[in-house]
Amino acid sequence: MITNTTTASLQADLQHKINNKTKPPGSLGLLEDIALQVGLIQETTSPMIAQPYMVIFAGDHGIAKTGLVNPYPQAVTAQMVLNFLNGGAAINVFCRQHHITLQVVDAGVNFDLIPASTQLRVKDGDIFINAKMEYGTGNYLEGPAMSEAAALAAIEKGKAIVKTIADRGTNCIGFGEMGIGNTSSASLIMSAVTGISVAECVGRGTGANNEQLQTKINTLEQVYVFHRLQQLSDQPIRLLATVGGFEIAMMTGAYLQAAAQKMVIVVDGFIATAALLLAKQLNPSILSYCIFAHTSGEHGHEKMLQHLQASTLLHLGLRLGEGTGAALAIPLIQSAVNFLQEMASFESAGVSNKE
Amino acid sequence: MITNTTTASLQADLQHKINNKTKPPGSLGLLEDIALQVGLIQETTSPMIAQPYMVIFAGDHGIAKTGLVNPYPQAVTAQMVLNFLNGGAAINVFCRQHHITLQVVDAGVNFDLIPASTQLRVKDGDIFINAKMEYGTGNYLEGPAMSEAAALAAIEKGKAIVKTIADRGTNCIGFGEMGIGNTSSASLIMSAVTGISVAECVGRGTGANNEQLQTKINTLEQVYVFHRLQQLSDQPIRLLATVGGFEIAMMTGAYLQAAAQKMVIVVDGFIATAALLLAKQLNPSILSYCIFAHTSGEHGHEKMLQHLQASTLLHLGLRLGEGTGAALAIPLIQSAVNFLQEMASFESAGVSNKE
Repeated sequence: MITNTTTASLQADLQHKINNKTKPPGSLGLLEDIALQVGLIQETTSPMIAQPYMVIFAGDHGIAKTGLVNPYPQAVTAQMVLNFLNGGAAINVFCRQHHITLQVVDAGVNFDLIPASTQLRVKDGDIFINAKMEYGTGNYLEGPAMSEAAALAAIEKGKAIVKTIADRGTNCIGFGEMGIGNTSSASLIMSAVTGISVAECVGRGTGANNEQLQTKINTLEQVYVFHRLQQLSDQPIRLLATVGGFEIAMMTGAYLQAAAQKMVIVVDGFIATAALLLAKQLNPSILSYCIFAHTSGEHGHEKMLQHLQASTLLHLGLRLGEGTGAALAIPLIQSAVNFLQEMASFESAGVSNKE
Repeated sequence: MITNTTTASLQADLQHKINNKTKPPGSLGLLEDIALQVGLIQETTSPMIAQPYMVIFAGDHGIAKTGLVNPYPQAVTAQMVLNFLNGGAAINVFCRQHHITLQVVDAGVNFDLIPASTQLRVKDGDIFINAKMEYGTGNYLEGPAMSEAAALAAIEKGKAIVKTIADRGTNCIGFGEMGIGNTSSASLIMSAVTGISVAECVGRGTGANNEQLQTKINTLEQVYVFHRLQQLSDQPIRLLATVGGFEIAMMTGAYLQAAAQKMVIVVDGFIATAALLLAKQLNPSILSYCIFAHTSGEHGHEKMLQHLQASTLLHLGLRLGEGTGAALAIPLIQSAVNFLQEMASFESAGVSNKE
C-alpha cells in the first residue's frame, strides 16, 4: 500500500506531466483523465499497457429453457462459444485487430464443449479454459440458481484464472460474457443492488420484441417478489446464488483478483457492469482500477453507470456483449498512455506556452 | 456513376451481409452504419481500408497579431508545425499507433519553415509539403483575409495534394489543422452559413478565460457586421476570402478532391467541420463520403453537427485540433470493415438464428 501522501504527490507529478505536453491544458479531454488514472493504478508517471487480455466467461441459465425471457434458444450459448473458439465472432475480430489475447472460459455451459473443442480450427490451445461448474444454473422461477457454496467456488475459479494471466505479465484486462438469458440475471442484480425498479432495469437483451419484452418484465417482477430480492441488496453472495449465473459469479471473482493485481480493468457493458456491482460490494475500492469502456444500447446500462457515477469512453450503441465494447476501448486507453509517454513538452519542443 | 437501382441493390446486399453475421441484428450499433456506408462509398460488399492518411494544413491569421481572439501568440503555429515534423505532437503519437501516414502542409504559416525543416529529426522527406500562399492572412478587422483569387488557388492546391495521395492507393483520409486564431475564422464561417448567432458559435479555442472569451465574441460580432457576413451565407468563396484562412481554404479543396476520388473522409473537429460546411456548398453530395469522428469540446461544434444532421463516433471532450479526433476514430472505422469481412455468418458458424 502506498500512503495518501505519496498518492497525492504522484497525482501532482502526473498532472504536471500531462499539463506540460504540447497542447492546451485539458484539450485531450477524457484521455487526460485516463492517463492520470493509469498512472495512479501503476504508481508511476511512466505507465504502460502490457499484453492486454480479454476473458469471456460463458454459462447457461435455467430460466432460458422456459423461453419467457429470451428470443434465442439456449443452444446458442454453446454455438457461440464454438464460434469464439473458431475465431468467427465479433470479439475475435476486434481482439485480432488490437493484439488482445482472448481466452474463453466454460463457466457452466449446458453442452460438452471439450470433445467439440478438440476439432477446432484455432490452434492456440490456451484459448479455451474448462471451468465448468454445472450444465447451466437452476431455474430461479422455481428455486435458487445455484447454492451459495457454488457461487463462492465460481468466484474462486474466476480469481484463479486472472491470477494465472497476471503471472504472464499482463497489466490490462477486460471481461466479456456469453449466456442466453443473462441479461435477466443482470437486470435482477441491478434492481436488487441499486433499488431501481425491475421494469426500469430490464431491456431487450438479444433483440426481444415489444411483447417478448413485456413478458420478460412480468416474469422478472415475479422472480423479484418470489425471492424477496430487496432484502439481498447488500448480500452479494446470496444474490448471486439466487438469481446469478456461473459466468457472472466467475467474472465477479475475476474483477476482485484483477484489482488485487493492480491491473487496469476495462469494464464492458450491461452484464459486465452488473457483475462489477457485486465485486464492488466485496471490495469497495475496486472502482479506482476500472475504466468504463462504453455505454451500451441495452436499456438500463446508463442508469447502472449513473449509480456508479461512471463516465464511459464510447457511445456506439453496442449491445452485443462478448467484451466487444471493452476491446474497442483498449486502443483509446493505449492512446492515453502513449501521449503521456511520447509527446514533447513545451520546453523540449520549444513551443511557447500561454502569454 | 452507379445508378440508383444499383445503389439500392448494393445497399440491400450489404444489409443482408451485416444482418447475417453471428450477432443480434443491430447489436454492433454505429459500427453497422459505418460498415454500410463504407461499402456504399467503395461500391462493394467487401470494403477495405487502404493506407489511411492524415493531412494537417497549417496557416496563420492576421487577426491573431491583435491578441483579441487568442491567448497563445501567433508564433505557436510555426512552433507546432516544427513539433509535428519532429514527431512530438499528439497527432504524431496517434498516427504512429494506428499506422496512419502523416503529412504536414504549410498553407500559409508566418515563418520560413523550409530552412528549419532541413534540420529535423524526422527522416521521412515526404512528411512536409510546402504550399505556402502567404505569410499569414490579412487582418479581417481591417479588410478581407485574402483575395478571392487566393482562396480559389488555395482550394486548387488542396485538391492537388489529395490527388497525389490518392494516386498512392489511399482510400481513407482525415484532415487536421494548425493555426493560432483559426477557431475565430471557423466561428464566423459557421455563423454565416448556418445563421446561428456569432455568440453561440464562438468558443474558448485554445483555452481563453471568461474575459478573453467575451473579448473574442465582441470582436467577432464586429467583424460579422463590418463584412455583412449574413449576405455571404451561400457564397463560400467570398466567405473564405473575407474571414477564412489558407489552411481552411486548402482543406475545403482537399474535401472536394477526396469525394471526387471516392475516399472515406474522416471529419475531425470544429475547424475541420467548418471547412466541410464550405465544401458542402460546392458539392452537396459530399456528406455521403464523410464519417464524423468526434464531438469536440469546443463550444459550437455540437450545433454545427446538428446543422449537418451528423452523428459522431467519439465523445471524448477533445478540443485540440491537429486531426487528433479523426486519428482516434480510424481504428473504429477499421473495426466496422473488419467485422463485415471477418465475422462468421449464422450458417457458416452453425449458430441458430432467432426462434
